[in-house]
Amino acid sequence: MGKVPRILSWRNMLVLSLAVNFSLILRILKGTDGGNSSYLVSIWPVVSNSLDRTVYGDSKWPVVSTTASGSSSLSSASCTYNETQEDDHRIINLKLGDPMVYERYWQEMGHMTTMVIAGWQSLSYFSDNNNELCWFLEPELAKEIVRVHKVVGNAVTQDRYIVVGTGSTQLYQAALYALSPHDDSGPINVVSAAPYYCSYPLITDCLKSGLYRWGGDAKTYKEEGQYIELVTSPNNPDGILRESVVNRSEGILIHDLAYYWPQYTPITSIADHDVMLFTASKSTGHAGMRIGWALVKDKETAKKMTEYIELNTIGVSKVSQLRVAKVLKAVSDSCGNETAKSFFEHSYDAMFERWKLLKQASKTTKGFTVPDFASQRCNFLGKAFEPQPAFAWLKCEEGIVDCEKFLREKKNILTKMFVPYYGNLNNAMIETFNHLR
Amino acid sequence: MGKVPRILSWRNMLVLSLAVNFSLILRILKGTDGGNSSYLVSIWPVVSNSLDRTVYGDSKWPVVSTTASGSSSLSSASCTYNETQEDDHRIINLKLGDPMVYERYWQEMGHMTTMVIAGWQSLSYFSDNNNELCWFLEPELAKEIVRVHKVVGNAVTQDRYIVVGTGSTQLYQAALYALSPHDDSGPINVVSAAPYYCSYPLITDCLKSGLYRWGGDAKTYKEEGQYIELVTSPNNPDGILRESVVNRSEGILIHDLAYYWPQYTPITSIADHDVMLFTASKSTGHAGMRIGWALVKDKETAKKMTEYIELNTIGVSKVSQLRVAKVLKAVSDSCGNETAKSFFEHSYDAMFERWKLLKQASKTTKGFTVPDFASQRCNFLGKAFEPQPAFAWLKCEEGIVDCEKFLREKKNILTKMFVPYYGNLNNAMIETFNHLR
Repeated sequence: MGKVPRILSWRNMLVLSLAVNFSLILRILKGTDGGNSSYLVSIWPVVSNSLDRTVYGDSKWPVVSTTASGSSSLSSASCTYNETQEDDHRIINLKLGDPMVYERYWQEMGHMTTMVIAGWQSLSYFSDNNNELCWFLEPELAKEIVRVHKVVGNAVTQDRYIVVGTGSTQLYQAALYALSPHDDSGPINVVSAAPYYCSYPLITDCLKSGLYRWGGDAKTYKEEGQYIELVTSPNNPDGILRESVVNRSEGILIHDLAYYWPQYTPITSIADHDVMLFTASKSTGHAGMRIGWALVKDKETAKKMTEYIELNTIGVSKVSQLRVAKVLKAVSDSCGNETAKSFFEHSYDAMFERWKLLKQASKTTKGFTVPDFASQRCNFLGKAFEPQPAFAWLKCEEGIVDCEKFLREKKNILTKMFVPYYGNLNNAMIETFNHLR
Repeated sequence: MGKVPRILSWRNMLVLSLAVNFSLILRILKGTDGGNSSYLVSIWPVVSNSLDRTVYGDSKWPVVSTTASGSSSLSSASCTYNETQEDDHRIINLKLGDPMVYERYWQEMGHMTTMVIAGWQSLSYFSDNNNELCWFLEPELAKEIVRVHKVVGNAVTQDRYIVVGTGSTQLYQAALYALSPHDDSGPINVVSAAPYYCSYPLITDCLKSGLYRWGGDAKTYKEEGQYIELVTSPNNPDGILRESVVNRSEGILIHDLAYYWPQYTPITSIADHDVMLFTASKSTGHAGMRIGWALVKDKETAKKMTEYIELNTIGVSKVSQLRVAKVLKAVSDSCGNETAKSFFEHSYDAMFERWKLLKQASKTTKGFTVPDFASQRCNFLGKAFEPQPAFAWLKCEEGIVDCEKFLREKKNILTKMFVPYYGNLNNAMIETFNHLR
């Protein structure tokens, strides 16, 4: 297999690049003025290859640059979307989540996933006349979704309805629409155990819906009656495998399993929940396609979710669906190839290298610590390992009142701030969403 | 130009096909039991080539079939999405709007608009680091949007911000989010002159938003204070060029110009409004791409619209955007080619033929009449003509209480029912949305 040496070479370069970059992060962090913080900071793009761009030399992204004096420094540019000045060559942008780490893998795969689409193809709104529920779901995508889950063993697909969405974000809203009472009982509370994905409260409350509203931290939720609990597992931002915490009979569950793939966490069991959300953005790195899918047990729920997507966007891009189908096929095919590494083995290795360096960085500086994860056996990869999530949930030292601000203003490191588990989570989440862009 | 004879041949076949089909519609209509109706019925797919499928022989779509006795009849199949039984070979489905009429044109254009996209391309969430507003807008699409509007002369693009959306439906919601007050003043009323696009009330009210709510017919709107008026021009479903009707200083306008293209209506002036919505679905027929765009005068409005799309779907499919960019480029290029017909000349001719047959059908049956449009000079095509909209807004005879039901149950013709301009429009629109699918 001629590919292997090239991949090894790339991995070597990646490690080298990361080592250089993390040493520079350390240099900067070591240069703090000794403040402490009880705030937790998430360094977003553990899955982003923004650091790898040193290899590609794409000047639009953070690069290691050499100053006139010959010393290296980190620079960021326009990926900060004008929130940050480009003329400071010491900024490193770690607040953007963009799964570019997989780009090189797909380059290595050559034209296996190249798609050719003629001008007259996929004109129609309709994808599948035989699908009585989700008429805009491409049959080829449905087939490959079922296949990849069977190959990986991370979710039950039998007797499930598939609803495709413009990313899992749209599917989350579709699930809220489907699961909320449409009578006059007023908005149902939507809760999730803190810390939770900082955009969820904003998405939930942005239209001041009379159907649902953000209800805050599931751990402290005490209200009577029906509620929706959002279980994100592995959790964004802390990477923990989660279960429902409210556990009352009136609870309706949505499981966001965007990160339940073997490059991020051991696959310990086959997920079997009522509504499970997945996305191409995190599984294969194809964020720009905006494709997510829901596996739904109840037919009426799937029907209502489909109805929401009809109302919201009259379906989902067909060409994106066809492309993701092709990518998922390549992923499943790679898992059956015994002579070369699978996509998940490659991506596991990439994440492993990044986390190794991050842990080293954490040990050699007093500025922050990374979480300690327990090692578990992964049924898919056939070995035990610690989670290596797409987010690094750092704990800064005590005494620094605002860690995100401190790192940004004093150290030129852009991070994504989360307020602690307690406190006014809603207001803080508005602040943090802006950093997502 | 070798294309011309082929295109003529296709057009001849199209006319032949339509003539056969409309004669069959007439046969069925003439066979009514003499009932009358004051209700108005819209036959949706004037832009759909479902009838043309007789040429292609695609059995999944309505076709002319021959019964055992040798007589012709119209059959429909699964494009009715299980709302209609497939075993009745006398059904013709005219309720679905699907712009397949342009498929043949794009086939004739060959590989001019064929897109090749590799597996490693367009992974990122981000499209344009230099766009301070709409970071998910592909620069190539922005360029071609500006160009096609300049070529056609149907909308001002200078000093306008472009916001791309997952179809213009998402942009409509983005505009509502952007233009509604976000204080505690309660939901702003959204009005439009009846008859209006039947999905607008549903889209507006589906989440029971506290920001905005459907306010009904603009013609009878009397409430004090701010309101949003939706001006659809040419209007869906009646094809009339429209202006604001409320005309109060507190009014905020959204112009839905999806059909303001020369195949549907004379381009009499360059549209110059605060928020103008367009879509690839109706301009070029690429509905399956789910690409719309807004031309927005005010920067803050464009910014808020972008924010909504971030919250709703974290951007818009990049591959769809790139494909629509390629299609729009081909359209603009065709307009500069003096030796062959442009896309708009082709599509004008297709619509002209369909409307000619429809008018003939209307004259030879007592069942319905089509609207009388005034002829106007089109600045783009350089000639005067009557509007030939994508919808036919038929008026049925008096006496039939429910025209849609009557045609469906008695004559096996599936149409899209609208209640008259007066009456309880909201409730009726819920009924009609189901027919959109």
